Amino acid sequence: MDFELSEEQRAFAQTAREFALAEFAPHAARWDAEAIFPKEAIAKAGELGFCGLYAPERIEGLALPRLDATLVFEEMAAVDPSTTAFITIHNMATWMLGTWGTPAVCERWGADLTSGRKLASYCLTEPGAGSDAGSLKTRAELKNGEYVINGGKAFISGAGSTDVLVLMARTGSGGAGGISAFAVPADAAGITYGKKEHKMGWNSQPTRTISFDNVRVPAENLLGSEGEGFRIAMKGLDGGRINIATCSVGAAQGALDAARRYMHERQQFGKPLAGFQALQFKLADMATELVAARQMVRLAASRLDAGHADASTYCAMAKRFATDAGFDVCNDALQLHGGYGYLGEFPLERLVRDTRVHQILEGTNEIMRVIVSRKLLEGDSDIR
Amino acid sequence: MDFELSEEQRAFAQTAREFALAEFAPHAARWDAEAIFPKEAIAKAGELGFCGLYAPERIEGLALPRLDATLVFEEMAAVDPSTTAFITIHNMATWMLGTWGTPAVCERWGADLTSGRKLASYCLTEPGAGSDAGSLKTRAELKNGEYVINGGKAFISGAGSTDVLVLMARTGSGGAGGISAFAVPADAAGITYGKKEHKMGWNSQPTRTISFDNVRVPAENLLGSEGEGFRIAMKGLDGGRINIATCSVGAAQGALDAARRYMHERQQFGKPLAGFQALQFKLADMATELVAARQMVRLAASRLDAGHADASTYCAMAKRFATDAGFDVCNDALQLHGGYGYLGEFPLERLVRDTRVHQILEGTNEIMRVIVSRKLLEGDSDIR
Amino acid sequence: MDFELSEEQRAFAQTAREFALAEFAPHAARWDAEAIFPKEAIAKAGELGFCGLYAPERIEGLALPRLDATLVFEEMAAVDPSTTAFITIHNMATWMLGTWGTPAVCERWGADLTSGRKLASYCLTEPGAGSDAGSLKTRAELKNGEYVINGGKAFISGAGSTDVLVLMARTGSGGAGGISAFAVPADAAGITYGKKEHKMGWNSQPTRTISFDNVRVPAENLLGSEGEGFRIAMKGLDGGRINIATCSVGAAQGALDAARRYMHERQQFGKPLAGFQALQFKLADMATELVAARQMVRLAASRLDAGHADASTYCAMAKRFATDAGFDVCNDALQLHGGYGYLGEFPLERLVRDTRVHQILEGTNEIMRVIVSRKLLEGDSDIR
Amino acid sequence: MDFELSEEQRAFAQTAREFALAEFAPHAARWDAEAIFPKEAIAKAGELGFCGLYAPERIEGLALPRLDATLVFEEMAAVDPSTTAFITIHNMATWMLGTWGTPAVCERWGADLTSGRKLASYCLTEPGAGSDAGSLKTRAELKNGEYVINGGKAFISGAGSTDVLVLMARTGSGGAGGISAFAVPADAAGITYGKKEHKMGWNSQPTRTISFDNVRVPAENLLGSEGEGFRIAMKGLDGGRINIATCSVGAAQGALDAARRYMHERQQFGKPLAGFQALQFKLADMATELVAARQMVRLAASRLDAGHADASTYCAMAKRFATDAGFDVCNDALQLHGGYGYLGEFPLERLVRDTRVHQILEGTNEIMRVIVSRKLLEGDSDIR
Repeated sequence: MDFELSEEQRAFAQTAREFALAEFAPHAARWDAEAIFPKEAIAKAGELGFCGLYAPERIEGLALPRLDATLVFEEMAAVDPSTTAFITIHNMATWMLGTWGTPAVCERWGADLTSGRKLASYCLTEPGAGSDAGSLKTRAELKNGEYVINGGKAFISGAGSTDVLVLMARTGSGGAGGISAFAVPADAAGITYGKKEHKMGWNSQPTRTISFDNVRVPAENLLGSEGEGFRIAMKGLDGGRINIATCSVGAAQGALDAARRYMHERQQFGKPLAGFQALQFKLADMATELVAARQMVRLAASRLDAGHADASTYCAMAKRFATDAGFDVCNDALQLHGGYGYLGEFPLERLVRDTRVHQILEGTNEIMRVIVSRKLLEGDSDIR
Repeated sequence: MDFELSEEQRAFAQTAREFALAEFAPHAARWDAEAIFPKEAIAKAGELGFCGLYAPERIEGLALPRLDATLVFEEMAAVDPSTTAFITIHNMATWMLGTWGTPAVCERWGADLTSGRKLASYCLTEPGAGSDAGSLKTRAELKNGEYVINGGKAFISGAGSTDVLVLMARTGSGGAGGISAFAVPADAAGITYGKKEHKMGWNSQPTRTISFDNVRVPAENLLGSEGEGFRIAMKGLDGGRINIATCSVGAAQGALDAARRYMHERQQFGKPLAGFQALQFKLADMATELVAARQMVRLAASRLDAGHADASTYCAMAKRFATDAGFDVCNDALQLHGGYGYLGEFPLERLVRDTRVHQILEGTNEIMRVIVSRKLLEGDSDIR
Repeated sequence: MDFELSEEQRAFAQTAREFALAEFAPHAARWDAEAIFPKEAIAKAGELGFCGLYAPERIEGLALPRLDATLVFEEMAAVDPSTTAFITIHNMATWMLGTWGTPAVCERWGADLTSGRKLASYCLTEPGAGSDAGSLKTRAELKNGEYVINGGKAFISGAGSTDVLVLMARTGSGGAGGISAFAVPADAAGITYGKKEHKMGWNSQPTRTISFDNVRVPAENLLGSEGEGFRIAMKGLDGGRINIATCSVGAAQGALDAARRYMHERQQFGKPLAGFQALQFKLADMATELVAARQMVRLAASRLDAGHADASTYCAMAKRFATDAGFDVCNDALQLHGGYGYLGEFPLERLVRDTRVHQILEGTNEIMRVIVSRKLLEGDSDIR
Repeated sequence: MDFELSEEQRAFAQTAREFALAEFAPHAARWDAEAIFPKEAIAKAGELGFCGLYAPERIEGLALPRLDATLVFEEMAAVDPSTTAFITIHNMATWMLGTWGTPAVCERWGADLTSGRKLASYCLTEPGAGSDAGSLKTRAELKNGEYVINGGKAFISGAGSTDVLVLMARTGSGGAGGISAFAVPADAAGITYGKKEHKMGWNSQPTRTISFDNVRVPAENLLGSEGEGFRIAMKGLDGGRINIATCSVGAAQGALDAARRYMHERQQFGKPLAGFQALQFKLADMATELVAARQMVRLAASRLDAGHADASTYCAMAKRFATDAGFDVCNDALQLHGGYGYLGEFPLERLVRDTRVHQILEGTNEIMRVIVSRKLLEGDSDIR
């Protein structure tokens, strides 16, 4: 066992931290307030390789382990979880395209995606089927060498501002086995985007519904084989859960660091907040939860990297634990700031709003409990 | 003991509910999204007496017990906690003015305030002295029959859009004993308002800093006597804490009712959410916390009405308990709505943002613990 | 609304407090350590009417409202929750016998039970059917004017040391409708008692299984009519839940008072524990939870007294809330005592062990959530 | 980074598991109920090396890393946390003696201690100075080549049944710098032991006070040098905290495994408990907390092994987190067992009682928060 980052990993994280401080920090509050999707900043992240961290080398990705990717995501999320979360989704979609795409698909989009010059959206969720992904209704029918897609998606990050849609659609009968994955040009004829959703947070990434009305894509745009979509989606979700969990860890670290600073600066009743024992204890608990959350994320990422038999269970645990802890730490840090924590000039209320959705997406934390308990009650697993 | 509302009280609450559904419900989301201060709607509340619920009759207030006032506030807050919270602050400031104001002051503003034709802001908090009210620095000096006011206030609800400021300023030496209360015209020469604060919630009421630069008010604008200000402020806070606590209870009821409805409507995995036991249990706990919170508020209001020796302690308990429970219930209701809870088209995320500040203002919940523990450790009190 | 006790109620509670301090306090630790069932002390409680607080006057009970009974139980439980809890069970069984018993049954046992000269056990739970009371299997068959009882009960408080068993047995077909209630002499032929269970707490009351092997009782020992047993049991449980909840409130008050004293006595790092802010905050939260729990119990008792349509729901809420809060407060008080809290010479560890079972019996707190959520999701109820 | 145990470590843990199942499991309930100190079973553990896991080789210890020691302790604690906790204390005291003892001391006791043929008690805590170890009053004065010891200790595990006392006593002036460590024969003249404490749990190890009345030990029994005692104690505590934390992790694993089994066995309302979603979710949360707790312990142990600058902080975090989580998991598992969880025939209530003290000793969890927050607020540390 070894719990320490290598020199190389530390350097990598340091690069991400410096990038985030230089390119995200000065703008994150404005991107949130004005709902700006910072494509240029994301492209700069792409220049450092952050748009294809674990995408395969065939599309010029860095092909890093998931664990290494969390180091980058965590540092960026400490400054701007919303923008970072989009980048993680882009990474996931890009990895899918690069892993299961045909040479034609990889050729067309691969290098543009890993470099951040183009962006991808991941299209799984449908309005009627939030956590119940296996029941999705969007259909893709093969006719004359083309897939014709009809249906609708909801809660799609980046929708309307991205270039490629990695889409899950039904090619066969009902249930999970009838689902296939596709790469779809975002501007294909027949695609219409809904209005930009008004959300609690995650304002630096647009969220829209998408309608597909006889959208035609060549057969080569199929990712993997027919019926493999749900399996791809689930593999994607394992990583997606680690990603979103690490965004929560990063945001919480940002919030904790802000609270530590503020406790020295702010005076009440003649002494700094740092001198009040009840607040000291709160800070200690926040840090402890955060360290535990980070460990859970790294454990899960490590097991996903290793192909551990129970990797999905550890990913679900990490997602549940870290997104709950992350929200709580941000929320506690807001409280430590008193009235100032509620104002937009401090980052706390933004971190609270941004991390709130992490408890919901990539499978709600309720679904995480379903996944974990199912494995526990199977009885043959050895979850440690 | 009697835990039931009278017929009259029920009717009163019913009136408030119908008013809120008619006048607040259709607009609350927009007021939040566009940061609109709904002065007309507040004036309509005033027509029903809701702007002077416990203000004395000498200024045409209803002079109701605090317990009765909570019934009205709770119903309105179930629809729009932000607007309702402003109305409670206005009620508090109006009550102060009507209780301690000279005949001239009451004559000038009283009936306009209780009717909601004019609005009041309460000016206690200063930038450097959040919870530490006794250390405030704004000064009022008596010169030639006028008080000359210099200093600054922060986090003032309604500032810039109200007509009267009920202001706490220092007329004597340091400490709580040197503070006096004043009624100040909001447009007096020398008053300047800061920019509208960008906040997490409470967007339907503007929040601004206020600067006082040689602002002159006649001596008759003093409320009570010199040095009585802190005592007035503390009495106001007891009621203010009940008010804000009841706004949390109302919001939580609104959120719970939304969750109950949604659990019947939303289908997942082939059955409504209402059919999932883990969600049922969550709902049960939410309702239980909410009922407990309401009881705490009513107990405290009742003891404040009765002049109970430990009334302030019960108010602090109620504020701590109900604002924590209120936020948690709203937040849990958001979670039960999944991704839809995060969107502005549902009220949940607004209720979460609005109730978040209740844990901070009128004395943070940390200060509530200071108040409660101090009394408990004095040893002669019998808190039950 | 009125949240205050009457003079008479205060005096009544005061009597109970003095009784408990005189008769329970000097012995409670020993009764626990040596597993002594203090029948004499219970009989003394009976002399004050505490063994038939809400039993009807026809059997010389005090016929008090449930709310008044909670005042007595709470004071006694502050000193000894285990013994008090047995007394509440005896009160419940006695109330059943007095309410539904034939004149012969009332004549035979009534006055002895209300006076505490004889004691009753309540026999509902069976080994295979903890929370699922409707599935009980013990049978009573009417033959030649006698009921012949066969089967077994588990977790019976007082079993082996009491005089009457109030027994639920199946006279009809499966399900709740086939259950009837009986008064059974504890020494009837065919009754055998299991060994005294080794329990975490509640050591001052023996718990045993009971086996019924062709036990014969006269037909007049039927309580109510055939098939009415489940309804009687459920009505009993409403009150039983309030009783056990109030035992938790009492124990928590005892623990809180101990903690308040200890915080003044115990010095660490040169000052009393009372001087440490984090401990002050803990104490404040304990007291707040306790006050809320007491309000929940009184609200439920009041609604049960009034025959409120949703009384059962409020009883379930009160039981869930107060037994959780009660355990937590006792447990937090133990922690405030540090190592000394873990020792038997202080009452804390006993209070923790005794209150732990309150979260389980009279329907587990999980069952309480089932009850509450079912009512909430029916949609026509107005739980406030 | 590497989160996986080596083959050797797995085998080592497996040995410990088999040992515990064979030697502890059949007797643990009885040892608890009858307060038996199982010296023979501990000696058998010693035969496997478990009494000197990280003691130095000069006294025939295994000199293993702390991380490896946790693997053994965890497995044994899953069966009997009380006995295991004593073994961890013995390990700590033995390590101190072997590390700082003179050759004479090592010669006299070393191999007997590492083999478990003799047992050691650790004597730091005094009646008036629980968490405030630096204020201890027991004195050791050097006279004519002997130290003469006077004073008293409290809460000493094993006292009265062990062979060596590793004692902290004051040789110099007040404060931490005046404290020295000694090896004292447990039967030295002038030592008297108090009565066996009646405790909530940890019944398989006797706890007593010890009085020292002119107890004489040769100068060579000094461990380290004069004034080094507090430093030795603090180093011991870092490891002690990991040990006690891992006992909580083990106990929680034992409780979780019991709950998993019981949920399949126990039927309610016509299906096994495993079929109830609310219980599934509870189980998932228990397992997730447990995995996080284990990671915290291993992280801290690893950093202590590596001599990390912030190792003490991570030990404090791990102790706080894992002992809280451990108790909660055991307590939740008890609840899942319903009434049976409260009975002594199931291990749950014993696990709850045993783990309760872990939140208190080796520094209360409140002291852990003091340690963690102090480091966080120093500002130069990088706790991750």
